[in-house]
Amino acid sequence: MTTSTALLTDRYELTMLAAALRDGTASRPSVFELFSRRLSGGRRFGVVAGTGRLLTLLREFRFEDDELRFLRDNDVVDADSLTYLENYRFTGSIRGYREGELYFPGSPILTVEGSFADAVVLETLALSVLNHDSAVATAASRMSIAAGERPLAEMGSRRAAEQSAVAAARAAYIAGFRATSNLEAGRRWGIPTMGTAAHSWTLLHETEEEAFRSQIDSLGTDTTLLVDTYDIRAGVETAIRVAGTGLGGVRIDSGDLPIVAAEVRAQLDDLGATDTRITVTSDLDEYAIAALAASPVDAYGVGTSVVTGSGYPTASMVYKLVARQDPTGAWIGVAKASTDKASHGGRKAAFRTLVDGVATTETVVVSDGFEHLDTPAEHPDGRALQTTFVEAGEIDTAYEGPEGTASARAHHLRVREELPVRALALSKSDPAIPTVFIDAD
Amino acid sequence: MTTSTALLTDRYELTMLAAALRDGTASRPSVFELFSRRLSGGRRFGVVAGTGRLLTLLREFRFEDDELRFLRDNDVVDADSLTYLENYRFTGSIRGYREGELYFPGSPILTVEGSFADAVVLETLALSVLNHDSAVATAASRMSIAAGERPLAEMGSRRAAEQSAVAAARAAYIAGFRATSNLEAGRRWGIPTMGTAAHSWTLLHETEEEAFRSQIDSLGTDTTLLVDTYDIRAGVETAIRVAGTGLGGVRIDSGDLPIVAAEVRAQLDDLGATDTRITVTSDLDEYAIAALAASPVDAYGVGTSVVTGSGYPTASMVYKLVARQDPTGAWIGVAKASTDKASHGGRKAAFRTLVDGVATTETVVVSDGFEHLDTPAEHPDGRALQTTFVEAGEIDTAYEGPEGTASARAHHLRVREELPVRALALSKSDPAIPTVFIDAD
Repeated sequence: MTTSTALLTDRYELTMLAAALRDGTASRPSVFELFSRRLSGGRRFGVVAGTGRLLTLLREFRFEDDELRFLRDNDVVDADSLTYLENYRFTGSIRGYREGELYFPGSPILTVEGSFADAVVLETLALSVLNHDSAVATAASRMSIAAGERPLAEMGSRRAAEQSAVAAARAAYIAGFRATSNLEAGRRWGIPTMGTAAHSWTLLHETEEEAFRSQIDSLGTDTTLLVDTYDIRAGVETAIRVAGTGLGGVRIDSGDLPIVAAEVRAQLDDLGATDTRITVTSDLDEYAIAALAASPVDAYGVGTSVVTGSGYPTASMVYKLVARQDPTGAWIGVAKASTDKASHGGRKAAFRTLVDGVATTETVVVSDGFEHLDTPAEHPDGRALQTTFVEAGEIDTAYEGPEGTASARAHHLRVREELPVRALALSKSDPAIPTVFIDAD
Repeated sequence: MTTSTALLTDRYELTMLAAALRDGTASRPSVFELFSRRLSGGRRFGVVAGTGRLLTLLREFRFEDDELRFLRDNDVVDADSLTYLENYRFTGSIRGYREGELYFPGSPILTVEGSFADAVVLETLALSVLNHDSAVATAASRMSIAAGERPLAEMGSRRAAEQSAVAAARAAYIAGFRATSNLEAGRRWGIPTMGTAAHSWTLLHETEEEAFRSQIDSLGTDTTLLVDTYDIRAGVETAIRVAGTGLGGVRIDSGDLPIVAAEVRAQLDDLGATDTRITVTSDLDEYAIAALAASPVDAYGVGTSVVTGSGYPTASMVYKLVARQDPTGAWIGVAKASTDKASHGGRKAAFRTLVDGVATTETVVVSDGFEHLDTPAEHPDGRALQTTFVEAGEIDTAYEGPEGTASARAHHLRVREELPVRALALSKSDPAIPTVFIDAD
């Protein structure tokens, strides 16, 4: 089985590449920008995620024998293009927002520079990864804010395609979740994994008591027992009878949670199990979590809503040519002009303007002229938002793997502190801060 | 890189397996059922998809050294469980609805039989695949019905995680789409691929005319030119001037499509390009497609909405223990009793009852007693809906790969004809036919 990621690509990219090789424009130095015109769902901020995964997938973006054979057998491109693709290695640069960073409409999230041919073929892969992972991270961050200090676990693998589930677990972790049920996410990204038992465990046994006793024998009294297979009140009573008042926790996966949580807490306290934790896991989203803020809940498990972006399963990021050299070698900014999908041409440098540590503006300086923008960490326009991920084809390993994931999470929790208070509300509204474009030319 | 799919699994499945090995219940013959309590979004029918992919992933569901090392190093399970997993091969049976088949609330879509240990560990993988692929197929079928005879292409790879995109292309194809932009879907599943050029192609050149001329030189006059980078009217004029009246097609990716399509058709006809096709691709879903039924549109390209299930990115399928042997070896049906998530215990045989070729009822015969239900193609209760995918661990290859995908598509287009007319409406409603459970014991 091939590990190449090169065919995770829309056919038109290779068709354009073939035509560009033929008319001589394939080698034109070009700048593509990945950005979003809006925040989906009236969200007040977006969270960038996926960059670390993209860099690893880029290492495998190679057209090997299998890929070339498919392209040849299906007449996707001509012989010259096959030769070009056979030798394809991305030799350009990729700069952009760190994973975990916030973004707003027009933020230059990723900038890919190279020849037209080099950069155009990465469109689908870059968008697939960033759109999915950022949609999950954005929803997850809202849930994490709503949960406050209470721990959140991601448990939605069954409601996402099998590989997306792994990526979603990672994005949720970056955005503040503490753990995942997905074992592959644990292996691949170093995310803590969790989970104890399903309803089938209870149903496998002759009685609930037998099931609880066996689970305690196997996992110890610190485990969490699922108490809602039959009757919750009876389940809680049985759980404490079997485990004693030192039982780690109970999980509730059905019912009207604010009411049920209060009843279960009272029952546990009456039984003397005052330290037994209550985990709730039934159809939670950021609104349900917020509604439970005053309820005696100790931890949340979130499934469907986080892996599907809580109503917005994809970000609306696009990948557009924004600058290129003309035949004389001069840089020019370019942009699509259709009125409903206008974009800003030109290279961009982005800064988050802060006043007393609170973000006030997304400042984007636009210039067709500069080859490389100077973006120091300190800048009169605010905190510089772009970093270099790939330089002359060389990928910076710091952003990949478990280490990259952990540092993205730390970065997110840090920069989220810069948001103004109004950004933390869950209701639909405008972006928390405006994006201001400044023409530097 | 490992190709094992075994860790695409929630941790609690292995935790339960470990506890079951310890208390002796691991070997209990068990029946798990994958079904949906409801149709998401007031849909009138669901479309099963993913089964062929699942069977292929099941072949790779092996705990190899890498997987075992992760489980050991992270104390997920004990040593006895590691030994069990090291030798794990699914040796049970899997029966269920064919891919492309319709389903309704309570339809026994997939039935997995084996020891508890054998079957419980497949929960996450089975649900991940079926929930995602069926959500896409269900939305895609509605779009395909709305499009009528006009061809539909799937172009949403950029709005789905990179591997989901391939699965989504496949699910859309099964549900009636004609082609995909995704090259990997072409390679892996034999789906026709399509695509010509993006806005970046026009912006790469000094003028739109230059871009069109180059594309025609490379791809011939039968290509499709994207005419909305600057001004659509000027774009169409340029397209026909460059290509002649034999131009294959123009693509419109912005604007108010019913108005723009009519204007472009009139302009093309005035220019004499009466056979030049119009493809539209801007934010289409089933409702937009239906609204264009009277417009002079020749083909649709659908992106975001199809790969995200048009508002419902996951089906609500669950995987539940419904029957098991008790310690004496007698079969008993089991079911969770919580009032808001009740389910039907027992093994099930399903039939679509037809009157004059039109579906009237989803008939589900329930029995704890029978070991294997007799489900001939002809049956007094209607068309038998279940087939055998895996018998004693042996996977039937007929459902996998490009052949399985093509036959699933044919099956879908055939059984969709059985739907009553009211099932074809797009508005939210009840399931098109009721599900009736009959107790055979």
